[in-house]
Amino acid sequence: MTKNLVLALSGGVGGAKLALGLSHIVAPENLLIVANTGDDFEHLGLSISPDIDTLTYALANLDNQTLGWGRRDETWSFMETLATLGGPAWFRLGDRDLALHVQRTLRLKAGETLAAITADLTARLGIAARILPMSNDPVRTRVDTNEGILDFQDYFVGRQCQPEVKSLHFAGAEAARPHPDFRAALASPSLRAVIICPSNPFISVEPILALPGIRTALAACEAPVIAVSPIIGGRAVKGPTAKMMTELGLTPSAAAVAARYADFLDGYIIDHQDAAEAAGLTPRTILAATLMTTLEHKIALAQTALDLADSL
Amino acid sequence: MTKNLVLALSGGVGGAKLALGLSHIVAPENLLIVANTGDDFEHLGLSISPDIDTLTYALANLDNQTLGWGRRDETWSFMETLATLGGPAWFRLGDRDLALHVQRTLRLKAGETLAAITADLTARLGIAARILPMSNDPVRTRVDTNEGILDFQDYFVGRQCQPEVKSLHFAGAEAARPHPDFRAALASPSLRAVIICPSNPFISVEPILALPGIRTALAACEAPVIAVSPIIGGRAVKGPTAKMMTELGLTPSAAAVAARYADFLDGYIIDHQDAAEAAGLTPRTILAATLMTTLEHKIALAQTALDLADSL
Repeated sequence: MTKNLVLALSGGVGGAKLALGLSHIVAPENLLIVANTGDDFEHLGLSISPDIDTLTYALANLDNQTLGWGRRDETWSFMETLATLGGPAWFRLGDRDLALHVQRTLRLKAGETLAAITADLTARLGIAARILPMSNDPVRTRVDTNEGILDFQDYFVGRQCQPEVKSLHFAGAEAARPHPDFRAALASPSLRAVIICPSNPFISVEPILALPGIRTALAACEAPVIAVSPIIGGRAVKGPTAKMMTELGLTPSAAAVAARYADFLDGYIIDHQDAAEAAGLTPRTILAATLMTTLEHKIALAQTALDLADSL
Repeated sequence: MTKNLVLALSGGVGGAKLALGLSHIVAPENLLIVANTGDDFEHLGLSISPDIDTLTYALANLDNQTLGWGRRDETWSFMETLATLGGPAWFRLGDRDLALHVQRTLRLKAGETLAAITADLTARLGIAARILPMSNDPVRTRVDTNEGILDFQDYFVGRQCQPEVKSLHFAGAEAARPHPDFRAALASPSLRAVIICPSNPFISVEPILALPGIRTALAACEAPVIAVSPIIGGRAVKGPTAKMMTELGLTPSAAAVAARYADFLDGYIIDHQDAAEAAGLTPRTILAATLMTTLEHKIALAQTALDLADSL
């Protein structure tokens, strides 16, 4: 059997960059991007799936590169007006972005699954590869902080990651069923590689790993499991990864991220800046330019990850 | 007791013009505008109250005079995007308008009444007079047509009033409680006048009249009840009033509208064009310029209505 199936596990921004790179070098029918849904929440009566949406906008070439989140060509009339009406304005939703949430919510209420809705909406936006929620069942990341337990978006957007993190909990994960196609991909004889995208391990990757059977399946799968470090020179490109690591008693480093995946990781890609860490790492580790500022960088890093997998 | 309370019953566009005129000549604490809610419906998961909104935008000087409905300075990003995602695009909601529906829906779901929400939102938009839904209980106008029974907005917007109307039904009206402040106003010893605004009698005024006790209270109230004809020269200024009258076997005329209110009408204002009808009318009838194209026209017609009431 030809090993051609690439399974990517991804959170939002950083992960979406590598997923976009993969989508340029892997045939769409051979690429399955599993998205974290631990960030999902209900707001303004809408079901919002931030990581699915970030992946969707990135792969549809609709991502807002000025803001670094949301949709391009966005307008803000809704949010401006909602604020004047006394509505909750702490989570900003652009007018175009809002349409995605409204349509998703309508279809969820009508009984469709998140996976089916995501498949249809991504297809309508011209995305050929498949973006799959890790589960159709709700998983909700909660952050235990020095200010108490916060829902993820309250911590992440509402409090801008300022509270000190003590631990993370993925409510619902124990009972959630990984999407059958995710399980099937992990068990597939045609699986070429699993790529853990450079997303925050604690809030983007570990909710996926918390689903029943996933860690075991990753450890058992015959294909190489490759991760790309989200830490460069002891810092996160974007987001609270490094701050969280410190608060959780870890030294922010590529090595500390790899340690979170020690039970299944076969290959690891770290930035040239972190060359000194390579020697101490157990998985096969290579150096690359991991800061993906252009499409060329994204494609090159995706190719590096596949080459590493193919070499193992 | 000083008779200073003016109670206006109104639907959307035409009624809102006169209500705006009244708001310029009646002190806000003495003006109660009762809005039809028979047009209300649920769409995209939102609770939409078209007549309340039209009144709100008109009195807040936010009405879109180019479109003749909705909000001014509107943008349409949401609707454009929703259409590309395969969402329902038949009922157009502007980005700013949407904020009002989202906020209303959130607060209804949180257990507030439509009246309380309307009071707060209109105050936030700078409206001093009171816009009151006829009831906090749902009333839904249904149109029996040659194509079957249609929900009001399916008929009005979805089918653009093309089906032939056989009859109208106000679902829920029999069980709906008129808002207590509406009942109290009708019974108030300080009531100066009741003004039936120039709205479609069948779909804007009669849902209000269908609430238990309202027709009786109008007939019994000591203050004069004045209506302004929505028909000028046998035609409606806007909307399907004349078409509906024909389909219901009536001759479109100011006189035919007055006949709908025969049991309680004390005074009637018709357009100069319809002078020939005045002689045949039982309520005290006067002629005026009823086409309200400017604010001055709206104020003048409001003053004419109050003068007529005060003369009776």
